[in-house]
Amino acid sequence: MRNGMPVIDVHGHFTAVPDVVIAWRGRQITQLNRPSPARVKLSDEILRDAVQPTIDRMDERGIDMMLFSPRAAGMNHDLGDFSVSRYWTELSNDVIARTCALFPDRLAPVAQLPQSPGVSPDLWIAELERAVTELGAVGCIVNPDISGGLAPLTPSIGSQWWWPLWEAVDGLDLPVMIHASATQSPLFHLNGSHYLAQDYAAGVEFCASNVFDRFPGLKIVIPHGGAGLPFNKNRHRALHIQQRLAPFDEAFGRLYFDTTMYDEDALVLLVKHVSADHLLFGSEMFGTGDVIDPATGSTFDDILPVVMRPDTVDPVRLSDLLAGNARRVFSRLPG
Amino acid sequence: MRNGMPVIDVHGHFTAVPDVVIAWRGRQITQLNRPSPARVKLSDEILRDAVQPTIDRMDERGIDMMLFSPRAAGMNHDLGDFSVSRYWTELSNDVIARTCALFPDRLAPVAQLPQSPGVSPDLWIAELERAVTELGAVGCIVNPDISGGLAPLTPSIGSQWWWPLWEAVDGLDLPVMIHASATQSPLFHLNGSHYLAQDYAAGVEFCASNVFDRFPGLKIVIPHGGAGLPFNKNRHRALHIQQRLAPFDEAFGRLYFDTTMYDEDALVLLVKHVSADHLLFGSEMFGTGDVIDPATGSTFDDILPVVMRPDTVDPVRLSDLLAGNARRVFSRLPG
Repeated sequence: MRNGMPVIDVHGHFTAVPDVVIAWRGRQITQLNRPSPARVKLSDEILRDAVQPTIDRMDERGIDMMLFSPRAAGMNHDLGDFSVSRYWTELSNDVIARTCALFPDRLAPVAQLPQSPGVSPDLWIAELERAVTELGAVGCIVNPDISGGLAPLTPSIGSQWWWPLWEAVDGLDLPVMIHASATQSPLFHLNGSHYLAQDYAAGVEFCASNVFDRFPGLKIVIPHGGAGLPFNKNRHRALHIQQRLAPFDEAFGRLYFDTTMYDEDALVLLVKHVSADHLLFGSEMFGTGDVIDPATGSTFDDILPVVMRPDTVDPVRLSDLLAGNARRVFSRLPG
Repeated sequence: MRNGMPVIDVHGHFTAVPDVVIAWRGRQITQLNRPSPARVKLSDEILRDAVQPTIDRMDERGIDMMLFSPRAAGMNHDLGDFSVSRYWTELSNDVIARTCALFPDRLAPVAQLPQSPGVSPDLWIAELERAVTELGAVGCIVNPDISGGLAPLTPSIGSQWWWPLWEAVDGLDLPVMIHASATQSPLFHLNGSHYLAQDYAAGVEFCASNVFDRFPGLKIVIPHGGAGLPFNKNRHRALHIQQRLAPFDEAFGRLYFDTTMYDEDALVLLVKHVSADHLLFGSEMFGTGDVIDPATGSTFDDILPVVMRPDTVDPVRLSDLLAGNARRVFSRLPG
């Protein structure tokens, strides 16, 4: 609670995942031709120690609940074949679920999918269903650039290739958080430009597609404030007119965005340009912004005070942004 | 002149290039294994007819001078080998130079380079020098994603691979306009997300590099308002601290940006976040924004009225933004 209001952060990754997990993955990567299921000895104590600083920071900031997904860069769907991705994904999801189960009132699991270059979404569904029905996942994280920029390139996320996934999440009433993983392209920096480029591009593809006609209940969250897409609406309104597509605002208005931006002016503009019921508080705590800004003395990701300022968000809608929208969208959240 | 002030638009492409040119290119592409120099019959009348609507629109808006580069999407450095790119680039630059020579007080040529996948910048320099010394180019347009997202991927624009180009432009006191061309990746939409992703990524690479230490006089213009990079400074300040790089603002402050954004709030924020002597007026007229916005009745690219509002730009600095900075940066501009 912050100023008496519940706060849900929809954007958290387990960036402090214990070494024993990364080491298993490291060994798997050195033998990509011989994938086998994970066997990792991992006590609850190790998991608790790894995540306790996150809980402590949540306490400090007044964040009640965090949606907790695997380390985005570590998903690395680009490496190896489907079995490699599947065994790694199973381990990742098990680790996330066990960690969240230690703090069931504070952390809720978000599932990784066994995406793999050239592999149809049909093959991801079994693990998606396991994560939701057996592990309690309340959402899933989806990488629009599965191969990390190498061949075979991933079909546009607006294309029919993705429909098996949308059918499955629609049936489960499960929101999708778009989030790229690694890139192999020298043009992009992982969390400097690649994540943002993929967020933005995915938003553009969704808006130009007929996905929401086919799946009206689909809930897509674009993180990092949509990577600036909400500030560039007129560019896309113009393109939609030129290309005789449905008005840009129609599909844009179906997308959800989180507040994971670290610039005050940008946050204020984001709130102005995204409708109040489609914006979700997120700070990606213990991520890119986890370092002290010498100009303020706080870490860059400490954005809650900015979001809660009455001139940023209409106070009437503040509780929606901080928790209400997240509860509505992530309908499987407990409590 | 607009309200008595000279206006230079630094961001114009010859999007209405005559069919005879595109047709030559089309034939070249169908025979990539047999490149040969261009022979195109093209009268001054055809060129004049093609560009007259641009001049008329400039008159209507009060734009005195436009920097005029080849159609960005048409550069297609990804197609064919170096000879293919070289012959096409020579034709492009000749066409641009001839067109500008018809309106020497209104259009100034910006050169395309014979970039080609895997080909060192050393090989681009002869055409760069020809364009500047023989054709009067006042700048050059540089594609950071030469291969359009396919192998061989282009080295980071912050890497030493690019130094031969920086040496050459530095010697010529020639500004560089970053602008991607085609992409072959299904993930990106050409002018919906690819250009912006490449602008942003190039800015990030420059800021993380030591390019400006080595070439302190280098003048790099990031178009489309930097694709939102100026609004996300804190993300990059945080990353630079985490990675023990020089403070982000140092290199960021060396970059130039143009105003080619079509959202009023974003333009206002751009002006706020870029120093007054590093922002150049640009509208990419007859580009993405060349369609009427039903909400205003004007075309989206008619941004001069917004830029000229006293609450957007400090009136004391307005003439710099509209023309003074462009004259200083593009030092080869005549007049």
